[in-house]
Amino acid sequence: MRNIKLTVEYDGTNYHGWQIQPNAITIQAAIQDALAKITKTHTQIIGAGRTDTGVHAAGQVANFHTRSQIPPIAFQKALNATLPRDITIIDVEEVSPDFHARFNAVSRTYRYTILNRAYPSALLRNNAYFFPKPIDVQGADAIYRFLVGKWDFSSFQRSGSERINPICEIYQCRCWQEQDLVYFEIEADAFLRGMVRAIVGTVLKLHDRKDGINRLRGVLDARDRSTAGASVPPHGLSLLCVKY
Amino acid sequence: MRNIKLTVEYDGTNYHGWQIQPNAITIQAAIQDALAKITKTHTQIIGAGRTDTGVHAAGQVANFHTRSQIPPIAFQKALNATLPRDITIIDVEEVSPDFHARFNAVSRTYRYTILNRAYPSALLRNNAYFFPKPIDVQGADAIYRFLVGKWDFSSFQRSGSERINPICEIYQCRCWQEQDLVYFEIEADAFLRGMVRAIVGTVLKLHDRKDGINRLRGVLDARDRSTAGASVPPHGLSLLCVKY
Repeated sequence: MRNIKLTVEYDGTNYHGWQIQPNAITIQAAIQDALAKITKTHTQIIGAGRTDTGVHAAGQVANFHTRSQIPPIAFQKALNATLPRDITIIDVEEVSPDFHARFNAVSRTYRYTILNRAYPSALLRNNAYFFPKPIDVQGADAIYRFLVGKWDFSSFQRSGSERINPICEIYQCRCWQEQDLVYFEIEADAFLRGMVRAIVGTVLKLHDRKDGINRLRGVLDARDRSTAGASVPPHGLSLLCVKY
Repeated sequence: MRNIKLTVEYDGTNYHGWQIQPNAITIQAAIQDALAKITKTHTQIIGAGRTDTGVHAAGQVANFHTRSQIPPIAFQKALNATLPRDITIIDVEEVSPDFHARFNAVSRTYRYTILNRAYPSALLRNNAYFFPKPIDVQGADAIYRFLVGKWDFSSFQRSGSERINPICEIYQCRCWQEQDLVYFEIEADAFLRGMVRAIVGTVLKLHDRKDGINRLRGVLDARDRSTAGASVPPHGLSLLCVKY
């Protein structure tokens, strides 16, 4: 069996997230349906990150095993011709048989985008969270960067989705501004369910407090979701890339 | 009567263009409907540029006369709370009674965006024209800039929409590339119907020919739509700004 690696861009607005589930349109299901049409076989794909409803991706990675002899570039063309226009395959590669998009990932990088001005944006309505209150970007960046390192992120995990191992290592994170947009980017070995949105919400809540870093430390120590800030909405979030 | 100037951003994907018409959803109609709800009076608005179906705007300008005493900032908030999310009022100003968004405009600037790579983009599907063949951007820029000055643009006018005066003055235009995106920007005193899309289509057709400029000159001289290239599709086009 060949092992094919896909890099996928999608607009998550009209999907119930990545992962296949009954009675809901998901990215994984759409790609599997397209593969079934192309290869005439049911094919299961493995995604690197399970993005939630409304979350986008610039570089999600997935892989699948197939007996098909279609060359990678032809797979890409056939998939892009078959998939809905809000899902694009930006790269196809044949990889070694043991490559696993999820387990072999060394890090995932997410970016959260905030529109920080007094009025919303028609053009960015599905891709940036409209937050009209002024943000002290330097303050937010200082608090945010405190997270670099290994931490127990239980306080930032969606309740009801507890993972056995809540320890994640943040390799880098930074917050910066470009005109009206404020970006929060974060790279880690792994993320718990809802973790990025809970972190950004908490940083937004604490960013203009002098004791913000201490408070963030307190939230981490508490290991209790109720101590963190409210999650920011999903449409500002995008899975940027996955490293192997 | 007060005279109110609006600066409007919109995603034209779901609209039949700017101008009001029976049995079709238009930007003008949506704004007039919102104004009627807010002021309790039917109010006609005047737009600077009549964008076509599927064309976007980052800075369309419109004005309307009203007896309402609502302050500009409150008008903006009320309109943005009432309008669909794909139309945003980015500025409201009270202007002199004789200001006319269309007749007083000194120039309009349009930008056309092309995604120039081998595969499409899910995230840009409604805002950039996917054109996979390589573009010689320097060649395109040279031909495009030839248009600066006063010309008879009859050859670039949508047939059936002939304007009495087909002379437009191009103040500036340029074509450049940023990563996978190629932009064509153009500022002129006026534009004929379909003119930008016909120009970009013609430049794309001629850009890699040694005699491209001569051929473009020939198209201008012919004053015949059939001599120009096919129009590029509307979703790559955006009305960037209007100067007064």
